[in-house]
Order: sequence, then C-alpha cells, then structure tokens
Amino acid sequence: MYDPKPGDRLDSLDTPSMIVDLDLMEENIAKLFHLLLPTGVNVRPHLKTTKSPDLAKILIAAGAKGGCVAKLSEAEVMCAAGVDDILITCEVVGPAKVARLVELFRKYRKIQTVVDSQEGATAINGALEASGIEAPIQVLIDIDVGLHRTGVAPEGALALAKHIATLSHLKLIGVQGYEGHLQHVHGREQREKECRASMVLLSATATLLREEGFNIEVVTTGGTGTAEFCATTPGITEVQPGSFIFMDSDYRKAVGTYFSHSLTIISTVISKSATERTVTIDAGLKSLTTDSGFAEPKDMPDVTYTPMGDEHGWLSWGEDIEGFPIGARVELIPSHIDPTVNLHDFYYAHRKGVIEEIWPVATRGKVQ
Amino acid sequence: MYDPKPGDRLDSLDTPSMIVDLDLMEENIAKLFHLLLPTGVNVRPHLKTTKSPDLAKILIAAGAKGGCVAKLSEAEVMCAAGVDDILITCEVVGPAKVARLVELFRKYRKIQTVVDSQEGATAINGALEASGIEAPIQVLIDIDVGLHRTGVAPEGALALAKHIATLSHLKLIGVQGYEGHLQHVHGREQREKECRASMVLLSATATLLREEGFNIEVVTTGGTGTAEFCATTPGITEVQPGSFIFMDSDYRKAVGTYFSHSLTIISTVISKSATERTVTIDAGLKSLTTDSGFAEPKDMPDVTYTPMGDEHGWLSWGEDIEGFPIGARVELIPSHIDPTVNLHDFYYAHRKGVIEEIWPVATRGKVQ
Repeated sequence: MYDPKPGDRLDSLDTPSMIVDLDLMEENIAKLFHLLLPTGVNVRPHLKTTKSPDLAKILIAAGAKGGCVAKLSEAEVMCAAGVDDILITCEVVGPAKVARLVELFRKYRKIQTVVDSQEGATAINGALEASGIEAPIQVLIDIDVGLHRTGVAPEGALALAKHIATLSHLKLIGVQGYEGHLQHVHGREQREKECRASMVLLSATATLLREEGFNIEVVTTGGTGTAEFCATTPGITEVQPGSFIFMDSDYRKAVGTYFSHSLTIISTVISKSATERTVTIDAGLKSLTTDSGFAEPKDMPDVTYTPMGDEHGWLSWGEDIEGFPIGARVELIPSHIDPTVNLHDFYYAHRKGVIEEIWPVATRGKVQ
Repeated sequence: MYDPKPGDRLDSLDTPSMIVDLDLMEENIAKLFHLLLPTGVNVRPHLKTTKSPDLAKILIAAGAKGGCVAKLSEAEVMCAAGVDDILITCEVVGPAKVARLVELFRKYRKIQTVVDSQEGATAINGALEASGIEAPIQVLIDIDVGLHRTGVAPEGALALAKHIATLSHLKLIGVQGYEGHLQHVHGREQREKECRASMVLLSATATLLREEGFNIEVVTTGGTGTAEFCATTPGITEVQPGSFIFMDSDYRKAVGTYFSHSLTIISTVISKSATERTVTIDAGLKSLTTDSGFAEPKDMPDVTYTPMGDEHGWLSWGEDIEGFPIGARVELIPSHIDPTVNLHDFYYAHRKGVIEEIWPVATRGKVQ
C-alpha cells in the first residue's frame, strides 16, 4: 500500500505531490513577523492559503493572533482542531449557513464574522435570539475600500452600525476593508501609494463611527502585497496576510523576492510528445490552477509549462537544454497558491529532501 | 449539525453546492446508449468526469462495459468500490506508481493500462516479475493520433509492440488513440471530417499490428464530441465518452444541445457590489473552474458571471432585469465539467427539487 511517512525521502513520493521546503517556509514566517510585529498591529494570518490547523498553530506560535478564514465551513474545521480565535471574512448569508454559524458560536464564543447589509445582520441576530444563546456574537462591518466585491460603501457604514446597535445578539467590534485589488499592483511605490489611499477610507470610517459613539476596537485589512503598508498606516490595528508563507509566481511578479517559493508541485515526465523540444508530465489542471497564468518549472528559467488537460502538461525548452528522459522529476511553482493548495489532500513537508511532516489540507473544498 | 439527507428539499442546501437534475442526467445516459450501442462498439465511459463509483454503476447498468480512469489512484478507488473492469488511460510511470499498479493488479486482474515507451513497458514488466504474480497484465499501446500529449507516433507502434512481445508479464490486447484536440471542434461536419481522418491513423495502426501477427482485440478512442463518429468508423471497437452525462458550456458550444446540462453549482447572493447592475455571489475559483471560460447562470441569458477570487463571483446584467436581492439563489453551468466536479465533495442529486441521492465524489483529488 502506498503510505508515505515522515523519514521517507522525497524521491519516494508518487507524483503529482504537493511539497513544502520547511527551511524556506520557516524563513518566510520569520520574515513576516519580523516585519510586522514591531509595528504593534495584530497579525491575523488568512488561513484560506494553508487550509490547515497544523500550519495555523505554527503561525500562532510565531506570533499570530488567531487567524482568518473565508468561509463558515472552514471555521468549523479550524475550531474543532483547536484554532478557535477566528474571523470569518466573508458575509454569512442564507438560512442554512446562518444556522451553522449559530451552532458554531454555541461552542466557540471567540468567533467573529463580518456583515455588510441590514438583511444579513438581522438574519444572524434573529437566529441567535431563537437559539437561546444569550451572548452576542462579535461582528465587524465589512467596508468596500475599492475592490467592489463585498462590503458596504464607506458612507453607508454609519447607517449599518446604527442598525446593528438595535440588534440584541450582535456586538459591533470593528471594521474590515480588504484591498484585494491592490495586492498584485506591480511596483512597490505604486502599490504603497494606492494602498495608503485605500486605507484612508477605512480608517476615516473607523474614526467616524467612533465619533458617533461606536466602540471600534478592530480595524482589519491587508494581504501579502500590502500588509507592511497597512501595518504602518495610523488607525489600522490588524493585518491578514496569507500567501507569504508559500508565495506563488503571480505574487512574486508584484511584490518581488522578499518571500521565497516554499511550496512546489512535484511531477514526473511520463511521455515524449511529438515535438522535439517538449515532453509531457503528469500534472495538469487538477494539480495546478491557471486563473493567474501557468505554473513555472522551478530553477529552470528556459523551460516553460503548459497545461494539456486535467492530468497532463507540457514542458517545452529552448536550444540550450538537453531535454528530459521519461521518469525525470520536476518541481513546479504554482501561479496562484490558494486555489492550488485546494486541489491537494496533503502537504509533504521536507527538510533537505527528507519528509518531516505530512499535514492534511483539512479545509480543502470547504466552500460553504 | 449541517447534514443534508435524501428527502430534503434543494432549498435547504447550503451553498455553494453541486447539484444534479436526475431527470436530465438519466435522459443524457439514455440518449448516449441509444446512439452508440446499436453500432456494436463497447461503451467504456471515462469516469474522470463523474469520479464516482456510484455513477459508474449506473452507467454499467445502462449498458457500459466497465469504465476508464485517467490515473492509477482513481483505479484504486473504483476497484475497491466494486468497479474493477477498468482501463487506465494515462501512462503509469515512476517506481512509486508502478509499485501501486502491481499491488492493484494483485487483487484486480481485469485492470488494463496503456504504454507508450519501451522504458515504461520494461519498468512495469520488471516490477510484475519481481512481485511473483504469474499472470500478465493487459496493456494497450497508446498512439498519438494528433493531440501530441501522450502516445507513440503511429509509425513507432510496431517497434513498441515487438518490445512488449519480449516481456513476460505484459499482454498486448489493443491500441488506444485519443483525439482530444478534436472534441471541441465547432460544427458537426468539420468535427466528423477531422475525427474520421484521425481514426484512419488509429485503425491503420491496428491493422498493421495484426498483419505482423499481434492480436489487437481492442481499438479504443473517442470522447463526448466524437464518440458517434468513432463508433461508426470501421475498426474501432470501443469508445470512451465521459462529459455527456453532465455536459458543460464549453462542450455545448461545439456539440450543441443533444445532451442537457444536468449539473449545476447552486450559489447565493451575499452582497450588493458598488455598481448598480452587479451583485456578489458566494461561488468563485474554488467552486467553478475558469480554464475553459467562465460559468454561465442557468436560464438567464442576459446575466453574466465573473469570478472575483477564490470564494466570490459577480453576477452582472443588462437593463431589462430587475436584479437580485441578498439571499437569492442562482444556479451556474460549469464551463469545464471534469475539473469543476473535482472541486466538490458531494453530488446532491434531486428530482424536481427533492434530493434523492447524495454521492461522494470518491476519486476527487486522485491525481496520482
């Protein structure tokens, strides 16, 4: 039976497999906290990247205050695994999901969630009232700081705050504003400029709410591309970077090489193709996502990867390269880390080629 | 606890969820077998679409002869669930994978696999010899009929057949040639013409091998876009359609509406976005793939879907549509069915809105 174990060599893994270089990952973690903790903000890493309570605990040990998840079903898994200081960064909408939130909150009282509509806030409050739970759940108003995906416009925040104040089972503790549209702005200066402009919207909204008497303790925002700017913008109390731990080729194009590519997909050459400078590997759309471009062969700048269906991809190369025999193994750097991790069931984490840890991707597929 | 059950109404499902309209699915299955069985070919559906032994058994009951899988790890799951007449359509390469093949073959002797290199054939043979298993495994030579992904060129088939004949534990039973590059050719006439030209390569290779004394019983090929042409091409004995059971918007553009969209992803409007004719739903890159374009809202030709990250998407519409309130539910037709199914853990199969079956996507993530 195929049953990889810590102590096995990387070479013994079947492919495709998702592997993590522990030295590089630990360096990324150390760099992030070295950068952010001295600013005094809370670092609440977004766990939508790693999808793993094991990795969440490593981040908490390094200085993180809890974590973020995108979806309620991710929070269920994290809490059950002992990571219960969790902010759900997407709106919880619909009777089934609200019922799940109530059940989760019954057991885990640290849960925080966001709201961006009166309907949404009222529904959560009604379900909590009906549940007999007496404590209010902590909520943050989600503010649209330019991404136009979720969040109330800054000028609508006050009305929503006043509405929340009428609800017995919701306690407003802060605001969230995610500038997702700025994470991949190329060029550090331009990204900083746009980020700080976006953060003005968020902190001004927080100030306005405070002036109206609301107790806004948390102002949370930021990703890997902007966390360092957010953390030094007055009024921001918390940042949510996620991808820094593994990185991807799309992020590197924007933010450079401060963080290393610590995660790759290892693959095998399974066939010679009809063209002379191409072979076929066993990793396709089911192993590497394409929404942000194609994956890149690691340490092989003259070799390109092209997906060829769900289970295959081409490696193509220029004249200076000899080629790849059948059975050769290559590592690929994902173009977009979060959805790539979502395709895999396990991390095989190694140090210098020897597997140390096998972590399940515990919240993989938790889209609800 | 969230625990959907047969008998529940579709409305009670949390979102995003993957749902199947059983009436439409059964009609698709009936149409396929009505089209193909009278031609006399075997129908060996490609189970990389459904990823479910439950659905494989439904197809076998309808007339299928076993099934195909792309990867060895899918075959392991199918065999353990009682679906053991399986052809693995990708080359099995690398020591770990070959060892898994040997262990599978030890228990399930009907397994067939493909080879396209002497190295690959020799490695499988060596592992079988060393295992002490006496029976030979049935293999097919994979022929490149124009896709240039895997497969030996037609003119290389004879040399490979002669090599296989020297190997004690491999029994050559046929040839495979997948014309994947033709599945989505638009226009029935053009697709038929290119398909028949491609099939000439395959059947001529089979004839050549027979003339050289090889016993070529199986000539297997074809997908949803070409199966009807393959099935009526002299010399083809088996076809491998998969997507017909659910269809997707990309296939519809090529092959038309003979098969219906029986699978959709149901999603919820969770936020108003900043623009007037757009709302945000809770389905993004983690629920719907984008490699073949974006998903389409079902029965809403004037509404478009745009992914907005891993967990969100926009619905946008023209002037004639009133809009969508928060909490509204919409169904989306995937653009590419196989990798979309791979994102989900369960099928919720309903008839007229009442759930009848909940099938696990048992080979989801089986990329090895």
